[in-house]
Amino acid sequence: MKHEISVTKNPAPKEKPDSSTLGFGEVFTDHMFLMDYETGKGWYDARIVPYAPIALEPAAAVLHYAQEMFEGLKTYKGKDGGIRLFRPDMNAKRTNSTNDRLCIPQMDEAFYVDAIKALVGVDRAWIPDRPDTSLYIRPFIIATEAFLGVRPANHYLFVVILSPVGPYYKGGLSPTRIFVEDEYIRSARGSTGYAKIGGNYAAGLKSQEKAHALGFSQVLWLDGNERKYVEEIGTSNAFFVIDGEVFTAPLTGTILPGITRDSVICLLKDWGVSVREERFTIDEVFRAHEAGRLSEAFASGTAAVISPVGELRWKEKDIVINGNRIGALSQKLYDTITGIQSGALPDTHGWVVSLE
Amino acid sequence: MKHEISVTKNPAPKEKPDSSTLGFGEVFTDHMFLMDYETGKGWYDARIVPYAPIALEPAAAVLHYAQEMFEGLKTYKGKDGGIRLFRPDMNAKRTNSTNDRLCIPQMDEAFYVDAIKALVGVDRAWIPDRPDTSLYIRPFIIATEAFLGVRPANHYLFVVILSPVGPYYKGGLSPTRIFVEDEYIRSARGSTGYAKIGGNYAAGLKSQEKAHALGFSQVLWLDGNERKYVEEIGTSNAFFVIDGEVFTAPLTGTILPGITRDSVICLLKDWGVSVREERFTIDEVFRAHEAGRLSEAFASGTAAVISPVGELRWKEKDIVINGNRIGALSQKLYDTITGIQSGALPDTHGWVVSLE
Repeated sequence: MKHEISVTKNPAPKEKPDSSTLGFGEVFTDHMFLMDYETGKGWYDARIVPYAPIALEPAAAVLHYAQEMFEGLKTYKGKDGGIRLFRPDMNAKRTNSTNDRLCIPQMDEAFYVDAIKALVGVDRAWIPDRPDTSLYIRPFIIATEAFLGVRPANHYLFVVILSPVGPYYKGGLSPTRIFVEDEYIRSARGSTGYAKIGGNYAAGLKSQEKAHALGFSQVLWLDGNERKYVEEIGTSNAFFVIDGEVFTAPLTGTILPGITRDSVICLLKDWGVSVREERFTIDEVFRAHEAGRLSEAFASGTAAVISPVGELRWKEKDIVINGNRIGALSQKLYDTITGIQSGALPDTHGWVVSLE
Repeated sequence: MKHEISVTKNPAPKEKPDSSTLGFGEVFTDHMFLMDYETGKGWYDARIVPYAPIALEPAAAVLHYAQEMFEGLKTYKGKDGGIRLFRPDMNAKRTNSTNDRLCIPQMDEAFYVDAIKALVGVDRAWIPDRPDTSLYIRPFIIATEAFLGVRPANHYLFVVILSPVGPYYKGGLSPTRIFVEDEYIRSARGSTGYAKIGGNYAAGLKSQEKAHALGFSQVLWLDGNERKYVEEIGTSNAFFVIDGEVFTAPLTGTILPGITRDSVICLLKDWGVSVREERFTIDEVFRAHEAGRLSEAFASGTAAVISPVGELRWKEKDIVINGNRIGALSQKLYDTITGIQSGALPDTHGWVVSLE
């Protein structure tokens, strides 16, 4: 499938923000990528246009039945001036897996990456170059057909927007306090846990508010069926280092197949560290801590890359992990992944896609 | 809380459709109700304006994290010319319950009903008056704030739109073929099953497509934890008549507290029929059928009111219920509820809210 991408330049580009003050996903660039879908016609009219509001019919399916999906990835400007994307093919692949679960039509994965590259190319001057800054890329698809019967829509809009972002933790990598959620769940077998859809995030807001009210930065989700197996931390994948082995939940349909998760596992294996992708309970984590066998815990995701866990509360019990300091593996993973992303370290796995 | 509602009349009203050709939720009236929310300011600027597209920032939270809810109810024009709403206070109450689950701010329930009445008043000429037609009312709330961090939004838009609708089953009440879904789930304990949110509907599309491909009109959902208890049918509540008693799943958080469901239970009790709101398994339903004890099955909801189940498939087994004919209770419930809604029967429970 070959699509031409038309480009309409923004006649009134905005002033770029001071890159030392960047937050996350609050400022957007001058352009966006749009492409329509219609049943019988397929995806059509790929175009880069000035960033602007999108007009939707009040009855558009996305506003009622949440037929919507998204992805997230980053692009970096290296010290060498090179512009690099990190594993965008994985986002394209996951998009199609999510689309399948949500009855959204499939996309051409190579074109998906081309579209992202084209948009980043047009707004390349927006990529910040301070350490730990990047340009966050948000591809998403929404059902735009106007009707109120419950069924998959016949019209969709694929959109890509860009946002220059600062470091996730202002003061550098810093351990977080995590609350084990045992009232609400994120997913269960047969649900949508593995898909990157709005509904999963909406359902998680209530727990996040509860965690914040209690002074925690995020929740740890247990499985939805038995509420005992560790699944995710907030919107990230979860890792625990016990007796020198790294445990993380397996991809059995309830957790998101994180791209950072995959990179972490791959690097650990490179380093000869044993990785066990298998189910383990929160009780095992607490017992390992009690026995002095739990040395590190961390979450992985696109936004923060690696986020060490310093404290964990389950029911009435609090534990402090690794003296509330960043673990050696956490730090090494963070340094290695961000090093590869920025071009400072060699890309031994062919993860980096350079612009031009 | 008292809000003034400003009214801007549509200068270019549309031609009204022929009421004999109406479908469901495809045609919309000349006006819509809008109201904004901002943290610190509350709900403000209640207004009735011409029906038109809504402009959203590409980063609006509703398009990414599905922070969105909706309701559905109908208004009827009786033979006496009277315009009646059916239990709108229940929609207002459920809106706040849903909002709580999704971190959307609470609304004033009396004003919510006033807003609906005001909008219906402006577009009253759109209420069709053929038998089994009505004006469907769709209130919904979307998170409009533009940001990509995952958190509850600070800006919302409350919208009400109206759609003249025809009879749900063109040929009158007609038994449906239902497929018992044992792969995907709709909800589980701790999830969002009781809330009327987009995410629940998005997650159900895949099963619905599967059912359609197999020649069924809908799926029957089993509980998400053990996959054996009967929960809902499609987007409706499910009822089974066994040995003259009516069984339906209890409101324990995983099923939607349907307003038609509540009305059905209330009428059955009026009639001296035993109603058992308790968990029952799909296996019990099939065994009751085998023993000749299952006399009727039906679904209840706002769109179809009562929808009799004629056939049911679970794993490889098909059963035909009541000879694939409409059961006596199903028909009586349909006639009674639609009779009360249209004003043809006395409103003994104070369910009807008249316009003026």
